Amino acid sequence: MSARVLVAHGGGPTPVINASLAGVLSAAYGDSRVERVYGARKGIEGVLKGDLLDLSGLSENELECLSRTPGSAIGSCRHKIREGDEHQLLEVFDSYGIDVFLYTGGNDSMDTCMRVARLSDKVQVIGIPKTIDNDLAETDHCPGFGSAARFFALSALEVALDVEALDIHVSVVEVLGRNAGWLTAACDLAHSVGDVGPEMILVPEMSFDQEAFLESIRDRWNRRRGFVVAVSEGLKGGDGQPLVSDQGKTGVDAFGHPLPGNVSHHLAQLIQQKLGIRTRSEKPGLVGRASRALTSEVDRDEAWKVGAYGLRSALDGATGHMVSLRRESSRPYRSVPQLVELERVANVERLLPSEFYDPESFRTTEAYTEFALPLLGSGLPDYFSVGRFLNGKGG
Amino acid sequence: MSARVLVAHGGGPTPVINASLAGVLSAAYGDSRVERVYGARKGIEGVLKGDLLDLSGLSENELECLSRTPGSAIGSCRHKIREGDEHQLLEVFDSYGIDVFLYTGGNDSMDTCMRVARLSDKVQVIGIPKTIDNDLAETDHCPGFGSAARFFALSALEVALDVEALDIHVSVVEVLGRNAGWLTAACDLAHSVGDVGPEMILVPEMSFDQEAFLESIRDRWNRRRGFVVAVSEGLKGGDGQPLVSDQGKTGVDAFGHPLPGNVSHHLAQLIQQKLGIRTRSEKPGLVGRASRALTSEVDRDEAWKVGAYGLRSALDGATGHMVSLRRESSRPYRSVPQLVELERVANVERLLPSEFYDPESFRTTEAYTEFALPLLGSGLPDYFSVGRFLNGKGG
Repeated sequence: MSARVLVAHGGGPTPVINASLAGVLSAAYGDSRVERVYGARKGIEGVLKGDLLDLSGLSENELECLSRTPGSAIGSCRHKIREGDEHQLLEVFDSYGIDVFLYTGGNDSMDTCMRVARLSDKVQVIGIPKTIDNDLAETDHCPGFGSAARFFALSALEVALDVEALDIHVSVVEVLGRNAGWLTAACDLAHSVGDVGPEMILVPEMSFDQEAFLESIRDRWNRRRGFVVAVSEGLKGGDGQPLVSDQGKTGVDAFGHPLPGNVSHHLAQLIQQKLGIRTRSEKPGLVGRASRALTSEVDRDEAWKVGAYGLRSALDGATGHMVSLRRESSRPYRSVPQLVELERVANVERLLPSEFYDPESFRTTEAYTEFALPLLGSGLPDYFSVGRFLNGKGG
Repeated sequence: MSARVLVAHGGGPTPVINASLAGVLSAAYGDSRVERVYGARKGIEGVLKGDLLDLSGLSENELECLSRTPGSAIGSCRHKIREGDEHQLLEVFDSYGIDVFLYTGGNDSMDTCMRVARLSDKVQVIGIPKTIDNDLAETDHCPGFGSAARFFALSALEVALDVEALDIHVSVVEVLGRNAGWLTAACDLAHSVGDVGPEMILVPEMSFDQEAFLESIRDRWNRRRGFVVAVSEGLKGGDGQPLVSDQGKTGVDAFGHPLPGNVSHHLAQLIQQKLGIRTRSEKPGLVGRASRALTSEVDRDEAWKVGAYGLRSALDGATGHMVSLRRESSRPYRSVPQLVELERVANVERLLPSEFYDPESFRTTEAYTEFALPLLGSGLPDYFSVGRFLNGKGG
């Protein structure tokens, strides 16, 4: 066997999508069955155009550096595959002699994977999971999530430290994720790391009730000023529609495209307007899915592993599957990669289950902490206790 | 001599204001002239209320942990001192037998320091500089700036990596700082760390011309999609007024308080509305002044040093001065603390000088890089080159 391998990335980058690429390359370089590894420039669009990159010859140091670099070294796109695209893909595979196609992405990408796998019995097609949203089915969790969760948990903690110290405002921190609240929920992990964190968590799975929200804010402000509210960018109102979003209430531009929304800004203005409580908003946005310093080592290791495992599985003859992670233990944390059929994954969106979130208290549950905390990785910082001086007795 | 020392914090926290506190405490514990160290709970308001905390007895490990914890462990406030407040302060000093007053803050705090120093010859009053805005006079730079600069430089780089990889939008990254552009300028240091970074830097010292801005965005988009614009929250229009701000165009709440603004969101909507280019905004906000992982070690060391030096100077008899930093060398970077008279500092706002910024290109100059890069500290991460694959030739 003398396999030609093609890797492509789909959708938004994560802090560790390049770690999966490094995992593929590392496994490829060390496997005599691999003749050549290509990367598609800028995702499936690159495949369709036959714009392939030669990914051979990176040193171990370069692979290590690659695996710690956010963004996507070969680029990505949001192209949703169209009727006929599959045949174009097969033609490119044919002209480059591709034997293995590895596609790293989320739900949409796994759908593409599945369709390509069904069309060809000459190419082994394997999906590599990747999404900070953590919404892929049939896997304990998704590579990318742990690092973004670490970013938002520690950022929520640190903003809480700031607004506790200078307690003149409420801070509404906006978190990535349109439909699934996994990542917004991660802000609540702050309380497991330090002794402060967000007072409220608003996930897209709940139905936002403006009156109940404002009443809760007023109550909390009366008990203690200076606190954090974490909100998902995809927070939905009673009608099931996003409160503010690209599909929301902000109108369209001259070209008919919806204008960008900003739910944290909207809530900050709402709190201040209705309650007269000074409120500000923080929206780290893409910073939250691109932080190298806050990458989880557990996440990076797993991202690397699923890449390598995906390549080896394809070389061993597997196709039409996605690599998933099975958790063997939470304490100490241990996981192993395995294969699941793509048709069980494609286009399925796994939302935050109800046992992980309590809409009455606006907080996550112990079960969520048990699930998510190990994914942040070890080496969590030790913060000086706010209670030591600030909330203690006078001297 | 058997001195009683009081420390208070003023204004917004920084990642290293607690390092200055740790510096004071470390020096106090090791100096036989010090009988006791107090902290004012929540800034000057705590002093006025006589709400003082006993800061004795932290171990070396605790001081180390304190120095790496964002926020302010003793709290802060934004109280602007009023007529008569000084006398109230002196009464509290008297009743606690305070001999040394150390006040850590920015311009406003240094004004308070100066006024208190003039009123009393029984208390030695020393200001400890602190501001991420870097706008204090008579010092090479301000503790807090280096860490915030590291956050924004690396975040601008990382967002650029993200939008280069998935080049479907412009990203407008908003940076803290109402009047001074030092920190927004720091985003441009991305280009000294990796091979991507922001294409445009918009500082409050410039006058924003909407037409020129949009034309420049269109030009850049035509050359390359997927880039970053860094903008100061205090960006000003041709009339010298903030484009969008607390004093801006967003109206007031029911209580007459101005509503929070959001200049990055405003610019994102403007670009999309006028040019039809998909644009998003990132506004890390307080995350940018509270990140432990992105704290600059140079900054933390200096913050510790100015605290310790301030205490020792007061014990040696100095009063009416602020500790400032004098740069001895940029390569290798070396600075020493010294004293400057408070009246040369109080209420003076040092803006970004014109030799550090070029409004024609919307970029900072070499001189700015020379000034600011060493303050980010060592251990800057090594990112995998975007050019290696993404902008290279096909395989």
